[in-house]
Amino acid sequence: MVNQSFLDEFHLNRAEATPLYLQIAEAVRGAIRSGRLAGGEKLPPTRDLAGRLDVNRTTVVAAYRCLRDEGWVESGIGAGTFVRDGAGSGAEDPRRRAEEGASFWASRIPEMPRPEPRWLPHAGDGSILFTSPTADPELFPVDRFRDVLDRVIRREGAACLDYGPPEGYGPLRDLVAERLARRGASVDRSRVLLVNGSQQGLEIALRLLVPRGRFLLVEEPTYPLALRTARLLDLPVRGVPVDHEGLRVDALERILAETPAGMLYTMPVFQNPTGATLSAGRRRQLLALAARHGLPIVEDDYDAELDYGGEAPGPLLAEGSPPGVVLLGTFSKILFPAPRVGWLVVPEALVGPAREMKTCADLSSGLLAQMALHQFCREGELDLHLARVRDRNGRRLAAMLAALEEEMPASARWTRPAGGMTLWVWLPAGLDSDAVADEAMKRGVAVSPGTMFFHDGRGRDGLRLSFIRESEERIREGIAVLAGTIREMLARPGARDRAGAQAPVL
Amino acid sequence: MVNQSFLDEFHLNRAEATPLYLQIAEAVRGAIRSGRLAGGEKLPPTRDLAGRLDVNRTTVVAAYRCLRDEGWVESGIGAGTFVRDGAGSGAEDPRRRAEEGASFWASRIPEMPRPEPRWLPHAGDGSILFTSPTADPELFPVDRFRDVLDRVIRREGAACLDYGPPEGYGPLRDLVAERLARRGASVDRSRVLLVNGSQQGLEIALRLLVPRGRFLLVEEPTYPLALRTARLLDLPVRGVPVDHEGLRVDALERILAETPAGMLYTMPVFQNPTGATLSAGRRRQLLALAARHGLPIVEDDYDAELDYGGEAPGPLLAEGSPPGVVLLGTFSKILFPAPRVGWLVVPEALVGPAREMKTCADLSSGLLAQMALHQFCREGELDLHLARVRDRNGRRLAAMLAALEEEMPASARWTRPAGGMTLWVWLPAGLDSDAVADEAMKRGVAVSPGTMFFHDGRGRDGLRLSFIRESEERIREGIAVLAGTIREMLARPGARDRAGAQAPVL
Repeated sequence: MVNQSFLDEFHLNRAEATPLYLQIAEAVRGAIRSGRLAGGEKLPPTRDLAGRLDVNRTTVVAAYRCLRDEGWVESGIGAGTFVRDGAGSGAEDPRRRAEEGASFWASRIPEMPRPEPRWLPHAGDGSILFTSPTADPELFPVDRFRDVLDRVIRREGAACLDYGPPEGYGPLRDLVAERLARRGASVDRSRVLLVNGSQQGLEIALRLLVPRGRFLLVEEPTYPLALRTARLLDLPVRGVPVDHEGLRVDALERILAETPAGMLYTMPVFQNPTGATLSAGRRRQLLALAARHGLPIVEDDYDAELDYGGEAPGPLLAEGSPPGVVLLGTFSKILFPAPRVGWLVVPEALVGPAREMKTCADLSSGLLAQMALHQFCREGELDLHLARVRDRNGRRLAAMLAALEEEMPASARWTRPAGGMTLWVWLPAGLDSDAVADEAMKRGVAVSPGTMFFHDGRGRDGLRLSFIRESEERIREGIAVLAGTIREMLARPGARDRAGAQAPVL
Repeated sequence: MVNQSFLDEFHLNRAEATPLYLQIAEAVRGAIRSGRLAGGEKLPPTRDLAGRLDVNRTTVVAAYRCLRDEGWVESGIGAGTFVRDGAGSGAEDPRRRAEEGASFWASRIPEMPRPEPRWLPHAGDGSILFTSPTADPELFPVDRFRDVLDRVIRREGAACLDYGPPEGYGPLRDLVAERLARRGASVDRSRVLLVNGSQQGLEIALRLLVPRGRFLLVEEPTYPLALRTARLLDLPVRGVPVDHEGLRVDALERILAETPAGMLYTMPVFQNPTGATLSAGRRRQLLALAARHGLPIVEDDYDAELDYGGEAPGPLLAEGSPPGVVLLGTFSKILFPAPRVGWLVVPEALVGPAREMKTCADLSSGLLAQMALHQFCREGELDLHLARVRDRNGRRLAAMLAALEEEMPASARWTRPAGGMTLWVWLPAGLDSDAVADEAMKRGVAVSPGTMFFHDGRGRDGLRLSFIRESEERIREGIAVLAGTIREMLARPGARDRAGAQAPVL
């Protein structure tokens, strides 16, 4: 039964910019919505409707196709075009809309890495947290910073609430360059770009330096977000082992011989997660090897100033300024993260491209935050703060090392960093770090299982422990619980039998 | 003449982790640096040196290769290995190092779009600036914000200086969702992600939604940084023309028929640069067309609240929530940019991927800034501020429209926006917008030439004028100068003759 009544009040508007077929489609939709056209009713044949409206038949065909694609009508071959059952009401049903949404996006959603479930667990239930390698809020110089912020706003007025330059606030770039020079890396201010923490610098470096088809080389174990970022950017990864002298340059050389590498991401000082520092001999080898292979090095200098023995080497950038070194740094670990200010130091030739990438990423970092950090540092507050942080973190590190010595079974091993925020524990053979982390969590101690720090599922024999977010007393308590857990799991039948199945980490 | 004296004090350390060949290479380098080996001197044949050091010959071959690659030595076929002239001193020459740096990077620097030279010129010389479509600092509620910041830090303590969640501070996400609901777009808070201004949202949307090989569709003229971001991401672009009713949906449909499109980037309300608002009829057409083609729409809602007539339509997201709409917004234009906080509203299915992308971009936006904005808005300050901004901007828009009417030659045309920050002028035939912009700049008036807003060099017949950064008086003055410039250039011999060469913009 053809229903044409919906056309009674309908007139094509040939003057309007809306194409005629869309005007027709909208008339049909309106009729379905209002109930003038019901489910199962037949629309006029295209030829009839074209004649009645004095339009080309293809115009009506296009209108019907549009309605069919949207689900308002359906066609049987040779049978005509019918209003779909429930087309009017269904379109307003939010549940159906949500389903439509899900199916709309299903084919479009890029495949995403799944974030680690144990990433940054939050405090609150009294658990002892050895998981978080971030600055301890207990030490944040809150009142000092509030005072500086207040004075900067009064001094600068509206200017501090406007956009800043994409490369960052000039005086703060100077200050970063001066601080690097104190540590032996003399760079011109023009090479310092301010970014939102070292993570933004890392993403920019990866996008800038690793061409399609080339590998990102990372230390393994390494910073988990470097692995997640590589997955997001679809970069293939090769891991280079780390030992107590840092990156194994001999292994890197073997990898370079067989792998087209785009860049090496390394933390030469107080590496995350192991805390290892690259030895002087390895540094020379690394720089020579990189020069020989034309391999850019991105050095993450994020925690190198958290030096509790006073003997940390300067940045790789300091050593004869090899052309291929890019440096990342941040205020997040040496002060606090909320201003979201870090730096990316690139060779002259990369300043323009890096600046363009920062501009397209978010125009610029927050100007007020940069001005306040600059003022804060110029008043000497950062150095005062760093002295307090080094003192306290150093005592916490010592407490953890002593507790490990005292409590751990003889078959466990661990690194002995001279700075930074974390150390690495190799579990006794036969234990699985995921299982140990789960078991310890049940007993109120959070640790990071080693698999988080490898791109390929290795790391089952390792744990990362952060030593900077708990008091010395709670560190002793937590290590005792962890060691007890490990001893107990070792004593379970079968633990030894599984020992052979473990892949070596380093 | 073979020189072996450099070996006199050299001993291989077989216990050290450094590979033997690198120890040998380092001995040679040291001898060259110290002058014990001079330019032109011959190194021992590999076989001899291997015998003397009791190592495999391949070890020495590797050492020499390493030295050769680094430029310390050179080899003639069958003639042996010689120290290069100047190898020792040259390596310490900073000029040579800089050249090495440039050549090191030359092959590695990705090809970058060149930023527009006239992008955001800065004030200071008294010029009248019609170039900057950013909020006027004169209106920034500086003292109010300072007061709020101070109270938030006192209330929250160290917590406000720590990391926030990647998706943003919960109460501010609620507030953004509430503000969108007031404008007809009801979205769950879970779909609101806070980012560093709408630019970060745009980059995330582009990376998330445009698969390799698909086109980004943009209005043309459009926001210049959308074009720059597309170039950076290597996305091909197609422009869809805009007229006084906004995006030409009929043209979009033709483009969709022949172009594999990833998404459409559109500013449906007070479009930048034209100020045009999509008409109600076109909205319906656009949404139907996008649904039919499965085309995701990213709507940049950045200035839709700068509505001087009170009749701006709500976001596209409001109309029956089609599954494919993503919304970008920001505090930068309705308040001020320094906190770097904007929002990205995505369908449920994209929340996880967008959150992962934000995490890898920079972990999170600044928590203190988000908390302060939340407090500021909850106290009603944003609405008070918006009322003042609308009033003043509206008067400035009216002043510019009146001045154009009064001053411009009859052959010029312009848009008449009801809100936003900019309008578009079509120059009389025969004039080139780059030349007009240059000439006007010499007379103290800065305008943006139309070519900035097209991806392919078109736009030579258009100018963008921002009307929100100068007083009404200076707007009248500036338009008089601009109109005078245009009249004078029109009167020059040859101006009319070039008229035929212009490409039509719309």
